[in-house]
Amino acid sequence: MSALIECVANFSEGRRSAVVESIVGAIADTSGATVLGYESDSDHNRAVVTFVGAPDSVAEAAFAGISRAADSIDMDEHRGQHPRIGAADVVPFVPLRGACMDECVRQARALAARVGAELRLPVFLYERAALQDVNRNLADIRRGGYEGLKRQLAAGEPPLPDYGPRKLGSAGGCVIGARDILIAFNVFLTTDDVAAARQIARRIRASSGGLPHVKALGLRVRGQAQVSMNLTNYRVTSIARVVEAIEREARTFGVDIASSQIVGLIPADALTAAEAERLRVENYSPARILERHLDKIK
Amino acid sequence: MSALIECVANFSEGRRSAVVESIVGAIADTSGATVLGYESDSDHNRAVVTFVGAPDSVAEAAFAGISRAADSIDMDEHRGQHPRIGAADVVPFVPLRGACMDECVRQARALAARVGAELRLPVFLYERAALQDVNRNLADIRRGGYEGLKRQLAAGEPPLPDYGPRKLGSAGGCVIGARDILIAFNVFLTTDDVAAARQIARRIRASSGGLPHVKALGLRVRGQAQVSMNLTNYRVTSIARVVEAIEREARTFGVDIASSQIVGLIPADALTAAEAERLRVENYSPARILERHLDKIK
Repeated sequence: MSALIECVANFSEGRRSAVVESIVGAIADTSGATVLGYESDSDHNRAVVTFVGAPDSVAEAAFAGISRAADSIDMDEHRGQHPRIGAADVVPFVPLRGACMDECVRQARALAARVGAELRLPVFLYERAALQDVNRNLADIRRGGYEGLKRQLAAGEPPLPDYGPRKLGSAGGCVIGARDILIAFNVFLTTDDVAAARQIARRIRASSGGLPHVKALGLRVRGQAQVSMNLTNYRVTSIARVVEAIEREARTFGVDIASSQIVGLIPADALTAAEAERLRVENYSPARILERHLDKIK
Repeated sequence: MSALIECVANFSEGRRSAVVESIVGAIADTSGATVLGYESDSDHNRAVVTFVGAPDSVAEAAFAGISRAADSIDMDEHRGQHPRIGAADVVPFVPLRGACMDECVRQARALAARVGAELRLPVFLYERAALQDVNRNLADIRRGGYEGLKRQLAAGEPPLPDYGPRKLGSAGGCVIGARDILIAFNVFLTTDDVAAARQIARRIRASSGGLPHVKALGLRVRGQAQVSMNLTNYRVTSIARVVEAIEREARTFGVDIASSQIVGLIPADALTAAEAERLRVENYSPARILERHLDKIK
């Protein structure tokens, strides 16, 4: 069994399904890459495509997807609820079975150089693949969005790309990197008051002293207030813990949780561990899960 | 990727670890069989060994385990908290990836014939592999235990074996069959009153009008009252549902749940679905679980 890495690529298109399918097609057509799933959201106007394979194949498929997105998405026309800087907005590599972070960092940097040179897009390396410390955090790169980044690059202000031109065309920029597995998780509130969602997001996120390894934003999606999150270490801060905290904070606004959403795929353990705890299972460990053993069997 | 079946074999030895290891060794030494795990319980005085592989290999490994157990366990000396009729007490085959129930039934019946002929043990075929309707339910075969079965066979009374001699030696009998995946789950109460556990077991089990697909017994284990269960269709009656019911019934005795135990392995979905429901995830499906996709990747 060969080493496997995952790519969870975010593209700035969630409304024109033909465009999303064309990008997914470009990725799926790459030999050795397997698309595990994709989903698009019309409020966020973005699509998330999850694919896996041997490291070289996944990098090749990512290049194909970035190239197709850059050709078919005009950021000057793009409107959506989520911060974004480009057509192929964020492209992280994640080590899975038998792969290490160093391999993902190598692939990310090689892909960044190629995208800068061949597609002429400004590329920012982030997280574990960052070359500039100020670019390590995705939120810092995306803070001004596509429009802000255009002004910043024109003025020669950071964030500065690691590869490609220092100016923004209509395909925008691209953030490429390597990171551990993360869980993208959204909670809808029983209100349309986006100010409440923003306030709750501020209280629970790590950067303002909330829960460790939690990134959170308040948005309005489907006419409802939503707390949109990335949990960057679910073993330290579980989904269950985050939901509890949001429930508590929501009560101070006199509202409740309406529902929640998983974006993309999640490791089984992110749900099983919490459920086992709730059921007071004294002998739970991830090794109790049958499926964990089956991919070792030929 | 070839078809895979699972065997969850129960042996009547949970105290002498050298004997348990010798049985596990006999199984693991069989070419093409992989032992996923085993555990023994000294109160029940039994061990559960879970192994998988191609159907022929798993059947061969099961034969090796039965043979070793019959050679090393004397049922006339056996004491334990759990109903049992033999050294190799119950040997069910379960279809996993790419295998069907019919294949498991075929393997079970062929193994039963071989164990009857070569090891000279009375063999009872149960569940989906049953040849006699009265032997379909494991509890009916095991009701009188080893001691009762000895008397029944001597008197020519049912249960009657499908293969092998109609009398019991010191290795006892062996129940072989095919079934769907089941979850073995035990709940400890905050009391040593085994009568409470028995009463609760009676109230929740399917056979007395309780929860569908639940088999339950009240036992005393580690000096505590325990409700010991098999959930034979966790998609209909989940672990979470059973725990709720026991909690409710326990309250009528003024006691609570102390802890619970998973025996052997469980499918991820048995925990993830309940946790997702509790977190009000609106878009949960088993396909959200990353690991489910990975065993398809070469």
